[in-house]
This record gives sequence, structure tokens and C-alpha cells, in this order.
Amino acid sequence: MTTEMTLAAACAARKVLSTLTAARRSEALYAMADAMVAATDAILSENEKDLAAAKGNISDTMLDRLALTEARIVSMADGMRKVASLPDPCGRVLSRTERPNGLLIEKVSVPFGVVAMIYESRPNVTSDCAALAIKSGNVCVLRCGKEAHRTSSAIVSALRDALDSLSLPKDLVNLIEDTSRESATALMRAVGQVDLLIPRGGAGLIRSCVENALVPCIQTGTGICHIFVDESADTEQALDILENAKTSRPSVCNACEVCLVHRAIADDFLPRLKARLQEEGAHPPVKLILDPAAATMIDGVKADESSFDTEFLDYTLAVKVVSGVDEAIDHILRHSTKHSEAILTQSSENAALFTAAIDSAAVYVNTSTRFTDGGEFGLGCEIGISTQKLHARGPMGLEELTTYKYIIHGSGQIR
Amino acid sequence: MTTEMTLAAACAARKVLSTLTAARRSEALYAMADAMVAATDAILSENEKDLAAAKGNISDTMLDRLALTEARIVSMADGMRKVASLPDPCGRVLSRTERPNGLLIEKVSVPFGVVAMIYESRPNVTSDCAALAIKSGNVCVLRCGKEAHRTSSAIVSALRDALDSLSLPKDLVNLIEDTSRESATALMRAVGQVDLLIPRGGAGLIRSCVENALVPCIQTGTGICHIFVDESADTEQALDILENAKTSRPSVCNACEVCLVHRAIADDFLPRLKARLQEEGAHPPVKLILDPAAATMIDGVKADESSFDTEFLDYTLAVKVVSGVDEAIDHILRHSTKHSEAILTQSSENAALFTAAIDSAAVYVNTSTRFTDGGEFGLGCEIGISTQKLHARGPMGLEELTTYKYIIHGSGQIR
Repeated sequence: MTTEMTLAAACAARKVLSTLTAARRSEALYAMADAMVAATDAILSENEKDLAAAKGNISDTMLDRLALTEARIVSMADGMRKVASLPDPCGRVLSRTERPNGLLIEKVSVPFGVVAMIYESRPNVTSDCAALAIKSGNVCVLRCGKEAHRTSSAIVSALRDALDSLSLPKDLVNLIEDTSRESATALMRAVGQVDLLIPRGGAGLIRSCVENALVPCIQTGTGICHIFVDESADTEQALDILENAKTSRPSVCNACEVCLVHRAIADDFLPRLKARLQEEGAHPPVKLILDPAAATMIDGVKADESSFDTEFLDYTLAVKVVSGVDEAIDHILRHSTKHSEAILTQSSENAALFTAAIDSAAVYVNTSTRFTDGGEFGLGCEIGISTQKLHARGPMGLEELTTYKYIIHGSGQIR
Repeated sequence: MTTEMTLAAACAARKVLSTLTAARRSEALYAMADAMVAATDAILSENEKDLAAAKGNISDTMLDRLALTEARIVSMADGMRKVASLPDPCGRVLSRTERPNGLLIEKVSVPFGVVAMIYESRPNVTSDCAALAIKSGNVCVLRCGKEAHRTSSAIVSALRDALDSLSLPKDLVNLIEDTSRESATALMRAVGQVDLLIPRGGAGLIRSCVENALVPCIQTGTGICHIFVDESADTEQALDILENAKTSRPSVCNACEVCLVHRAIADDFLPRLKARLQEEGAHPPVKLILDPAAATMIDGVKADESSFDTEFLDYTLAVKVVSGVDEAIDHILRHSTKHSEAILTQSSENAALFTAAIDSAAVYVNTSTRFTDGGEFGLGCEIGISTQKLHARGPMGLEELTTYKYIIHGSGQIR
């Protein structure tokens, strides 16, 4: 199937989904989960082929993400069932107004239509995205990286069979066969066919979407997250928070990359921070990259021009001494990717100033940036973390996969 | 000032607005309205120059839109004061969750930052947009058509002086000096500087934005609106609604362009529709463009390939006979611009089917499409009508000029 044919099939299926009940959509998810588990042998066999082909071409981390086991498939199926059990995001009446002329105006949440996702090699994204899309009433078009294509095909084949067994169109879930760059570009330009495009991947993919997408697109993921340690911070707590934000999972987008420290406490705090982040034990020592002021207080690598604009995704932390909350805010406004930032302070005034002025999806007071996550926010699931401001910001769950329309009932009113 | 300098000034002003109280923003609006009225002579004098330069180059309708009078300036100022009196759209707590770990997560409405508008020659758009932007906590960057540039400059100059008199940065309201195509393109590509772009104009401008914009952009305006007259419709009411939707103001985007009629009643209904739309009296006779079936029942122009994909914006109506609600839905899904559509029916089943399946911003039952309007929806104002699905759909008021962020208060939680 060409990409064009897949898109046409997805669009044709759109109308069916718009009239399915929530119960029917959840039923589809349970059937899809069961079918995926039933297809375990076929999926694992295709996964072995993917792994064999990818070996030597991608990093060990990527290989590990690609590898499936029976247990992982069971866990993916459980994820689908959990999504099935969440509240229906469609049909919520967001507002209801009766106008003086008698018109009843309801603003109701509805699916986007066709949601396309471009992602890389994690097979669980295939089943997660299919589940989130169907649950929210959207047809999905999936375009995975070539390393995972055999595995994803086997998964999608099982999901489509499940839909067929319920007399639902198979084309509610679609996998693009072409894994070349051209198919990604085709999705970005499919105006009128793709109602929402969500890229999940590295900075290169996100940039390509911003530059090329003609369809509505949500930027996800990049996180240069800052933590500002104010003069009045509880410094013991600050050490715990910084260690957690930096080292609990440095490869994710909500990990802290930059620590800003108030000048008045830097002399005392920075040596303790260095000791905590580099002590032997729970995690590898954190490499510190220091601005000139911090470099007079502790040892570390000297910062260069790019140090405060880098998402390290590693055991590396950039450190800068600032004169106070104003300079911290200015630095963050200039360098942040608008993901997550925190202030650690006992001053409610400074906390209020920081939360008002910082222009990021999540702004924290006295806690770790690592909490920016659909599960931690209580959304029950997550399709990505938006770092832009149009439509959805921060962790995106099922509600963020819906838009709305106005439904107006009258009795012959004219204007 | 170059466009780049104007954008830099706007961005520098962004931080100030994020910390202004609602009272202070409203105070600014009242002062701006007063200053505009006080500058009436200067504005009218510049407006005369614009009119003299434009004469012969633009249509009489455009000239009329461009022309200001003392009364129109007073009315524009009243519009600003009305916006000032509306509820503050910022700082609304959209959700509040306390998590089991004690984190308090609030989702709070906040301004976008810098909102840019590209529009044509109506001077009232200048003051309207400035008022809506400041009220919603946004810095505005205005880029009007060259025909209105002297007038807009005089208006913006008065508004900026008012800001200055309140010790607020003049750069909260900015007018791009360059009126060439390059400045519009520069706004579309100002990633990181323009947080939201709203084009208000013809189909060419909207298309250019879709194709060129790298910044978040909302498509507004184009409306090929349909009314389907079902078998069970109250036909007298249907005639009133169609006459209203077609003739009360044919140049606007919520006017009806296409009438679909159920085959079972077409024989009786179409001659009555023709008589009503072409009778002498309140409005010029409506030109009817007919599909083959309708052409066997009444006289009119035969439809060609483009007839059902044209926004006439005139006393012209395309008419098609359909076999029922399903064919009506299919036709609309294929040809609509997703603005506004109506079903006229006494069948609640067909009404439910239609409102569920139609994928447009506003879906009406037994009333005119002309109600798609910020004022008619009770929003108190309107910055445009979105025909896309990301962020805002349908009439956009103050709330649609805000995004949100999450503000999370903790007490040392780590993950």
C-alpha cells in the first residue's frame, strides 16, 4: 500500500468512528489487547528479524528499546486495557448557554478525526498510540522507524484483525508501509487528511515537523529544564531535589539540565551540591559544567557558549550563579525550551514572581521537575509532552486528543 | 523601524505584561480608548490621505470599509471600553488536583505572549485587536494592509501614548511599518518571537499562512456553509431560515452558500424557495446554481465542477437534491470548509446523526448559520472565527487568546 492509499483508507474510516458509542470503542480496545497477546509468537518472530537486521546499526540502548518479550507484550496489552477503562474523553459538554433568543449552544468535545504519529523504534508506542487514538474516537495513522517496522506490522495486523472480528473497519488503525523520509513528509503535508500530527522523537524530527508540516502539528519533548535555588531555599531539601531531578533518569525530557544558584548561598551550597552529585553510590558521578562565578567556588568543566542551551540527557549538569530571582527568570526565559522549571525557595513572594513570569508548560515550587508526566499528573496515560502553546501544553492525555465543536439547537431563529 | 526591531521590542515587553494585574490591563484599555478619541483630528487627517491614495486602486466596498468618521472613532473607542469591562480571561484555574504524594497541581490560563495579526484595511481591526490582546495579557504586533497604514499608524500612536502616560511600555502595542509581503512572511517565520499568529483576510492570505507559517497559526474565516432541508422539515420555517442565511449579509463567512434538499420534498419545496429568494423586495434576487436534479424542477444556472466548492459571498446559492441525511452528510464532509452547517428537520434521529457526523465548528438544528459569531454566542467580542481544530474552533473571544500552564506546589517531593 502506498502512503496515499493508507491515508485515503484512514479518511474513509473517520465517519464510522464519529458515530461509535464509548462502550463500543472500549470493547474494541479490549479485543485488540487480547488479539495482541494471542499473536505473541508471530510478533516475537518478527521482532527477532528486526533485532537481527538492526544489530550493529543502532546503539545498544536503542536495541534494548526495540526488543520484545512475552512479558513485555502482556504489559503492552495491560496498558491498552487500562486506557479502555479510563473515562470517555468525547461528548463532554464543555459549556452550555441558552441565549435570550432561545438558541441552546453547547460546546462539546469531539475527536480530531485522523491522528498521525511519527515515532521511532519502541514497539510499545504502536499499541499505546492505537489505544489512545481509538479510545478518543480518532482514526490513527502510525509511521514507525524502519528498525521496528516488522514488529509494528505484526502488532498492527493483530489489532486490525480484532477490529474486523467486531465488524469494525480495520482501517481505524493504519501503519504506513513506507519507512523512508518521504512517507514522513507526506504525512506532514496531507492537508485535509491528517487532522493532527504528533511527532515523538529526537530534536531533528521535531525540527523537521516545524519546518515542513502544513497540517496541525504538536511539538513534543525537548526539555532543557532549570532548577533555581533561591537564597531562602531549604538547602538539604534542595540537594535531594537536584539529585532526583538530575540522576533518577537523566535520559528523559523532564530531567534537570541547568541549576541556577543564588549568589548569597552559592559559596556554601555549591560544594555540597558537588559532593552530593559526585559521591559514590546510587548513580554515576555527575559532570558539572560551570559558569565563571561557579568555577571560582568548585572544580568542574568551564561552560562555553552552548552549555546553557544543551539538552544533555546524561549525567551532566550546567551550573550558574545568579544575583536573584529576577536574573534567574531572565536566564530561563532566554534559554528554556518551555518544558519544566522549578524554584526552590521559602519566599512566597519569589515563588509567585517565578510562577507568574516563567513561560513553561510546568512551573514547580519546591519539588522536582521529574513530575511532568501524564501518570504523575493523574491523567491515567500520556501520548507525549507538548512544549508549545497551541491547543495542549505539558503532558497530553486522552482529553488532549479531542477538539470541540458547537452544537446549536433552535426553533426557527433567524438573525 | 524594521520588522525585526519591532519584533524584538514586542518580545522585550512580554515579561511586563505577564505580571500586570487584570485591573491594570483594563485601566490601560480605558486610557487607550480615551486617547484614541482625543486624537480624532489626527486620525481623520491621516485617514483622508489613505483614502486619497487608495481611490481608484481598491473597490468602493473596500474604500467604504477604510473610511473613518468622528462617529466611527467614538464607536471604536466604545468597543475597547466594552472589552475592558469583560471578565479577565487570565488566571482562571481550569483544573486543580491534589495528588496522593501531596503535590498540588493547578492548570491556569495564561496569555500566549506575543500575538501577531495580519489583516487588511479596516481601521477598527487595529483598535479591536489591540484591546483584545492587552485585555488577555498579550503583547500585540499588528500588520495591516498598505491602504490603511497611515490611519493605523495614527491610531497606534495614540494607543501607545496612552500606555506611556500610565508608565506602561509603549511596546505592548506595535504596528509593523513595512507593508510589503516580506513583513508578513517575516511574522510567519518569527519562531520564538511570535507565540500566535492570526491572519484575518481573504483565502489567499490564509493559504499563504498555512503554507509558510512556522509559528503557531490559526486559520480563520473561509465559509462554504450548507443548509440541509430534510424530508420532515417545517418548510415555511425553512424558507425563512434560508432567506436569512443567504440574504441578510451575503458577504460574510457565515452566510449560506449551498442548499441541499431531500428528494421527497424537492418538487414542492424548490419552486417555493426560488419564489422566496427571487421575489421583489428586501434584497436583490438570488442567483440559483442547480445540480441536474434540481434543474429539472426549477430554472437556474447549471452547476459546473466548482459550483459546490465556491464561497460566493454574494446573492448566489448552489442547490442540490439529495436522497437523504446520509447523502447530505457525505456531501458536506467532502465540500465543507468546516465552518457552519445546518439541518432543518423534525426528526430528532436525523438531527442527532447530522450533529454527530458533521465535522464543522458549528452545527445547527433548525436555525440559521448566520449565528456563528462571537457576539451571538455570548462571548462579548470576537477576534475571528477559526475553521481549524487545533486550540480554538469557531468564534474566538478572549479565552481563546489564552493558553495555560501548570503550576505545581510541593514541599520537597521527589520521584
